Amino acid sequence: MAISLSHINAKTRFFANQYSRPQLPSVAAMAQNQSYWISIEDDIKVYLKKAIPIKSPETVFEPMHHITFAAPRTTAPALCVAACELVGGDWSQAMAAASAIHLMHAAAYAHEHLPLTDRPTYRSTIQHKYGPNIELLTGDGIIPFGLELLARSMDLTQSNQDKILRVIIEITRATGSQGIVDGQYQELGLQQLGTDLEIIEYVSRKKEGELHACGAACGAILGGGAEEEIEKLRNFGMYAGMIQGMLRINKNGSEEKIAKLAALALKELESFHGKKIELISSLVEPSLETVVV
Amino acid sequence: MAISLSHINAKTRFFANQYSRPQLPSVAAMAQNQSYWISIEDDIKVYLKKAIPIKSPETVFEPMHHITFAAPRTTAPALCVAACELVGGDWSQAMAAASAIHLMHAAAYAHEHLPLTDRPTYRSTIQHKYGPNIELLTGDGIIPFGLELLARSMDLTQSNQDKILRVIIEITRATGSQGIVDGQYQELGLQQLGTDLEIIEYVSRKKEGELHACGAACGAILGGGAEEEIEKLRNFGMYAGMIQGMLRINKNGSEEKIAKLAALALKELESFHGKKIELISSLVEPSLETVVV
Repeated sequence: MAISLSHINAKTRFFANQYSRPQLPSVAAMAQNQSYWISIEDDIKVYLKKAIPIKSPETVFEPMHHITFAAPRTTAPALCVAACELVGGDWSQAMAAASAIHLMHAAAYAHEHLPLTDRPTYRSTIQHKYGPNIELLTGDGIIPFGLELLARSMDLTQSNQDKILRVIIEITRATGSQGIVDGQYQELGLQQLGTDLEIIEYVSRKKEGELHACGAACGAILGGGAEEEIEKLRNFGMYAGMIQGMLRINKNGSEEKIAKLAALALKELESFHGKKIELISSLVEPSLETVVV
Repeated sequence: MAISLSHINAKTRFFANQYSRPQLPSVAAMAQNQSYWISIEDDIKVYLKKAIPIKSPETVFEPMHHITFAAPRTTAPALCVAACELVGGDWSQAMAAASAIHLMHAAAYAHEHLPLTDRPTYRSTIQHKYGPNIELLTGDGIIPFGLELLARSMDLTQSNQDKILRVIIEITRATGSQGIVDGQYQELGLQQLGTDLEIIEYVSRKKEGELHACGAACGAILGGGAEEEIEKLRNFGMYAGMIQGMLRINKNGSEEKIAKLAALALKELESFHGKKIELISSLVEPSLETVVV
């Protein structure tokens, strides 16, 4: 669903080689940024592996495990943890929410690739380890499981309940009928109606955009950010996610729009301070360069 | 998924006519009990109609509205409200949870009837108003929507947050991979492997059983019931739901088991007091009669 970081970094290297500007992060800084994201993603993976052990009944847990980790990488969960840290929170506060966001993404991806009778054949091009029935039911099980994981993460002193309820609302909205599901529906139209740039933008907003906006906002909420910080990070996430969506759909002529989105994203970070800014910025900086092309 | 109340009442009338025992509720009492359940169900319907207005974009809201109300009746949501009242709560405290439970049931029903390539043809016997893709995506949207509705129901003084989080955990567990989804998976096996009474019992436990147990427990939690009351009502819901599941699958030879479940269910209510007991008991009383047959 979302483009992987390695894809973005390949793009970065490409543009950096062609137009190495002084203000671009150095290769050393880029490597450091990349390892920041990878280390967060590894933490989330460990958290999820503990949450979904392969245990009895294996007919339930094995497909759940498989579908959770078979989905393509998305940076939305890592952005959740990064946003939490940016507003001064501890990474552990965002781990359940980040995992829930990954689970929603994985379930959406599995359902998006179910072979249904009224779907164009291109959708059955991915490898299916299980039959459609198992993939449908497992996706159906993963959605509530993700929210259960989150609801269970209230701390012992029960001081974070209001935050968790707020985050549940954020995640249910972003992944429901007015978020990812709407994007999936519109993307089917895209395949049928052609690739109008406006629809591509809409699909990118609803799929990768909403998920990243949600990830960033949830991280900021859980990290104890002020309302203004939460909204700025939500906007940053929306722009960063839309860029990833547009890179995924990869339509000629979208480069300028992507560069504009990257500039808008960075503008949202202006009022933040500290070392984490550079790390978070690295999510969109490569896309700035497309302006030069 | 669950048998309708009118079905149960038809059964009641049948047995009452044949074996009118003195301890059976009078026809007048039965009518009163029935109107109690119908009035709760009407309240839930009104709540859901307000929550899902047919508004723009109609491509999203119209199917959501349709799928929500096209699902067969289940008494689990009404039991949630009744349990809340039984422990001394106000019906309004349980309305969001009851609606969320209905939404989970509706989404599960829609997905259960999706025409998938590896499903036996019997599953495509119901009328489909929309194509499989819309029915899949709408179900995917309804699950988070139900939980959002619930998370939003925290009151202004924010004194019920712990209860709502607890109820979210109850609902996600009952409807996920270890609840309804497991039942759906096993029921497919039932079609293929024949109708062994043990599997029928398992399917009934996981589908109608878990949903009713969850409904009753959630109502008791939200109504401020003591832990012991919550557990007794959870057990009552499990038995009442299993009865409905077994009546739905309708296998010869299950009458005795159903009657035993009804007796167990009523036992769980023994320590409760007040007029509401009679109303709640009426959910399983007709099944007691099968012992006589």
